[in-house]
Amino acid sequence: MSPLIDFEPVGRRGECPKDETLQGCARLLGVGITSLCGGIGKCGQCIVQIVDGHVSAPTPEDAEYLTPDAIAQGYRLACRTIPLADCRVRVPLESLTSPQRMQVEGEETPVAPDPLAKSYLVTLQPPSLDDLRADAGRLANALQEQHHVTATRVDLDVLREISSSLRAHIDRESGSWRVRVVTREGEVIGLLPPEASPLGLAIDLGTTKIAAYLVHLASGRTLASHGLMNPQIAYGEDVVARIALAEQDEGKRSLLRQLVVGAVNEVATELCSRVEAEASQIVDMVVVGNTAMHHLFLGLPVRQLGLAPYVPAVTSALDVKARDLGLQLAPGAYVHLLPNVAGYVGADHAAMLLATQIADLRGVVLAIDIGTNTEICLANEGVLTSTSCASGPAFEGAHIKHGMRAANGAIERLRLVGDKIEYQTIGGVPPVGLCGSGIVDVMAQLFLAGVLDRQGRMQDHPRVREVDGVREFVLVDELPLLSGSASEARRSAIVFTQQDVRQLQLAKGAMRTGIEMLLSTSGRKVEEIDSVIIAGAFGSYIDVSSAITIGLFPRLSLERFHQVGNAAGMGAKLALVSRAKRDAAQVLASRIGYLELAAHPLFSATFAQAMLLG
Amino acid sequence: MSPLIDFEPVGRRGECPKDETLQGCARLLGVGITSLCGGIGKCGQCIVQIVDGHVSAPTPEDAEYLTPDAIAQGYRLACRTIPLADCRVRVPLESLTSPQRMQVEGEETPVAPDPLAKSYLVTLQPPSLDDLRADAGRLANALQEQHHVTATRVDLDVLREISSSLRAHIDRESGSWRVRVVTREGEVIGLLPPEASPLGLAIDLGTTKIAAYLVHLASGRTLASHGLMNPQIAYGEDVVARIALAEQDEGKRSLLRQLVVGAVNEVATELCSRVEAEASQIVDMVVVGNTAMHHLFLGLPVRQLGLAPYVPAVTSALDVKARDLGLQLAPGAYVHLLPNVAGYVGADHAAMLLATQIADLRGVVLAIDIGTNTEICLANEGVLTSTSCASGPAFEGAHIKHGMRAANGAIERLRLVGDKIEYQTIGGVPPVGLCGSGIVDVMAQLFLAGVLDRQGRMQDHPRVREVDGVREFVLVDELPLLSGSASEARRSAIVFTQQDVRQLQLAKGAMRTGIEMLLSTSGRKVEEIDSVIIAGAFGSYIDVSSAITIGLFPRLSLERFHQVGNAAGMGAKLALVSRAKRDAAQVLASRIGYLELAAHPLFSATFAQAMLLG
Repeated sequence: MSPLIDFEPVGRRGECPKDETLQGCARLLGVGITSLCGGIGKCGQCIVQIVDGHVSAPTPEDAEYLTPDAIAQGYRLACRTIPLADCRVRVPLESLTSPQRMQVEGEETPVAPDPLAKSYLVTLQPPSLDDLRADAGRLANALQEQHHVTATRVDLDVLREISSSLRAHIDRESGSWRVRVVTREGEVIGLLPPEASPLGLAIDLGTTKIAAYLVHLASGRTLASHGLMNPQIAYGEDVVARIALAEQDEGKRSLLRQLVVGAVNEVATELCSRVEAEASQIVDMVVVGNTAMHHLFLGLPVRQLGLAPYVPAVTSALDVKARDLGLQLAPGAYVHLLPNVAGYVGADHAAMLLATQIADLRGVVLAIDIGTNTEICLANEGVLTSTSCASGPAFEGAHIKHGMRAANGAIERLRLVGDKIEYQTIGGVPPVGLCGSGIVDVMAQLFLAGVLDRQGRMQDHPRVREVDGVREFVLVDELPLLSGSASEARRSAIVFTQQDVRQLQLAKGAMRTGIEMLLSTSGRKVEEIDSVIIAGAFGSYIDVSSAITIGLFPRLSLERFHQVGNAAGMGAKLALVSRAKRDAAQVLASRIGYLELAAHPLFSATFAQAMLLG
Repeated sequence: MSPLIDFEPVGRRGECPKDETLQGCARLLGVGITSLCGGIGKCGQCIVQIVDGHVSAPTPEDAEYLTPDAIAQGYRLACRTIPLADCRVRVPLESLTSPQRMQVEGEETPVAPDPLAKSYLVTLQPPSLDDLRADAGRLANALQEQHHVTATRVDLDVLREISSSLRAHIDRESGSWRVRVVTREGEVIGLLPPEASPLGLAIDLGTTKIAAYLVHLASGRTLASHGLMNPQIAYGEDVVARIALAEQDEGKRSLLRQLVVGAVNEVATELCSRVEAEASQIVDMVVVGNTAMHHLFLGLPVRQLGLAPYVPAVTSALDVKARDLGLQLAPGAYVHLLPNVAGYVGADHAAMLLATQIADLRGVVLAIDIGTNTEICLANEGVLTSTSCASGPAFEGAHIKHGMRAANGAIERLRLVGDKIEYQTIGGVPPVGLCGSGIVDVMAQLFLAGVLDRQGRMQDHPRVREVDGVREFVLVDELPLLSGSASEARRSAIVFTQQDVRQLQLAKGAMRTGIEMLLSTSGRKVEEIDSVIIAGAFGSYIDVSSAITIGLFPRLSLERFHQVGNAAGMGAKLALVSRAKRDAAQVLASRIGYLELAAHPLFSATFAQAMLLG
């Protein structure tokens, strides 16, 4: 008889076929367990906990991703574990694949399309004994004659397919050849069928998320967009962990690079298939990311980026052949990387500033791009100073007891009304945890209700209890066990602990320190700020008044705040579509002064103050 | 008891260890049998004939390289064959590895060195909190300050190692970094140790042979040179065969490309090791070859090259990254390919004309580059017209009964004195066959002695005999069998057959047709030729008066002939060392008019006449 498996907290139960793994069983029962490696024990993403029952012995793969303690507590890789009897299996939130909200959109800045790669439809007469011109020369002549465009170079990979591409579309009546030629700065980088359009891809390569935009180059129109997790996350949540891994050996660096390259290739194919196009139509690409993501994507050395004084290998904008990165686009496609600013202020920051046009604004403007690393720029009458703070992944729900990413079931809004809690969840489904905006709401509500004092200490309250010596505030009560209730995804309480408060204080302290130090080095006061631009996915969902309440944002009237969404992605799109914007980004990056926080004499005192709530 | 193996005609005999192949046994006995694949049955080079004895059954590999007839006649791959009893094994000349004379030298044209890639020694101060410039920016700044050189781009593969390269040589006293930067047209293409010199590689990629020259770029000095067989030869002797193979499928095309790339990588390493350098010091390379070799080396399509009207994919000069071809040189190294002229007049012809400076000569000059394909240029008061003729491999000893390549034991000079034959062999060792220059001498001597009439028919003569209905002239008599005489490499007679005469007539007819047609289309007569330049390895060894005697060369006084050696290789070297010469080659190629022989109405009549001797 097949063992019966209970998956918690999703509440699915069913038989596991003989010799099937827990992951296979979960799939059969419709429980989504993350698997980046396809179930071969190589990604460490499908961790589950055997709460009750008997399963196969731990494998070497389990030992690689789990500590002996964790294994003793019943943690296993679902893809390596075969149940030997009925089991109760807990699927931690971080192993669930429930679709996560991936904000990729941002405020579009209108721009006149003027892409670097342009296409021309040409008609060629086939060779004859009277006309023995080579294929490449014949094409260049036609381009000159028919479009007055000079292309003296042909990319090697285009040359490798030129003869068949030219002969692929023959006019039945005249016998002439028709082809769409894509050129970029005097080089032929692609040959497309006559009716195909050249496409571009803009990528915002975040530490946690990747946002991708497929663009029709000639019109600048976005055809499709998609957000996905950065698969490197399996190898470290923040850039420090990934730099450390990449420096272990060449193989690890290569692995991290290939993970992202593979994800970009996949998303390129996926976006193209949505609009019935081929990835081979993508002739240009713009990538932005923080300096570490930028370096890892290019396969650049990161050791010097991880050691003081944290210098990048390169900051200037780069143009490289897509094939040199392992990308499968048009044969001669290029990838443009916007300039980095400093070790921890990357091309994504330059892109954000490009999209928000902050450099052109008068007055005092603060721009904050909130992520695992948060970059902040203060524009003081057009003088730009930027800094970076390690805000950590708390705003993305990590390192918070019941934190989770912004997926279905995450509490994203919360109010304390008397002793009652009112909340709303993503997807309107029963709550399973707290995402970033929910966490900020909780902090603000607890502070306003006096449950937290300025130091963040949790006071007595009917909903406060102590478990194992740690105080916690019960947001959502336990539910009684209802066996067989498949729609019930949660059984335990959802709480916010004293430790969670500390995590948030560290994150908000880091960010607020950056803001304060930028103001003080620019000789400005908080009340002089005319405008605050909040960028990033988390930034668009955050309740600004909650963020002001806890002191994450400076206390200014709400109308001065502008939540602009994924401005880095929008900047990447601008640079993809407009040659002028691409050039502007390089000028912009060179205008940005960099403030190194950790080295500043006032850092510690400012940070201590910034940790306080209110 | 181990079987006893007799290797013929080299006369080696010894025991073959149990389970050892014939190739392994040959190696033990010091008999060199060609093996390109390392003895895994993949190159078909180690063909031997089992004359007597018993061996293992034919393998699938044997069947791939040998016809059923050949297998029935005892032919086998030595690397796939294990003797089961005493054997007598004939090693055909073409399977012997006896070192071949590989002429690589040619007349040097003096030129002021001005290479595209230049190097600069720079000193850098390491980063500090006050100086957070990225590695690449720091390098560019130092290059500008210390040498007034602007390099705005850094090759991606250089960037991938920039951080460690910069930190590899630290001055003990000052703590500053020292590095030699190699730039090319504003791009950093290599970072070398301070004391290393940037090197260049010039390659003449022939259908049969590859000549390689390692050059010290700054001085233009040739440090080392080497000739080797083109390993593609295992897959077809002439370009037509290789084009046909490449067009069978993508894998075959890739195989042909990789064979040459592998050979170039090997020769680069070998030449560098001779001068205690590393292949990673090679920052620039120039390759010349006929259009088919050029296309196969680059992985370009050749189908259209093999079909009328025989158009190349590209004729203009190309610059590609060495890594895009699979070459292991400096990380950002480039390969320059001189321009092709037409389908069967390649970059090697442009290089030959560059080296011989034929375009600058007054009067009427004929330049002939003899190879498997022979290219001929007629310079008529500076107006250049070129053509190509399929002279075939007869001049390299192939398709001639006792023909062989120019290796030890080849008869290279021969005179008929009465009924006696006087000859000299390469290496002064006992004769084993005839190489190209020997073959031309034989033809001339037989014609002068009246053994051959103008039509090439062999007349009666004391040394003429008939075997199986075919007349043959005995050049060297059989030797009696002398068992155990290891120094004796030959036992059978060396003859020149009526069929050999026909092969030669076809080759010389093709070449002479080219000469005549160039003259007639230019309105010139033979006696108006002021100078004849003979290029190519075979061309340097040929006896010019013999060649005139048989009508291979036009009847002119000997002092008008100039044997210049490997002029194509010399041209490649010029383009490697001098930017001006590289540009000149492009201009030169565009000035060359192409004469297509086969399509010409006078072709057949001219060819019939050109076949005649005298």
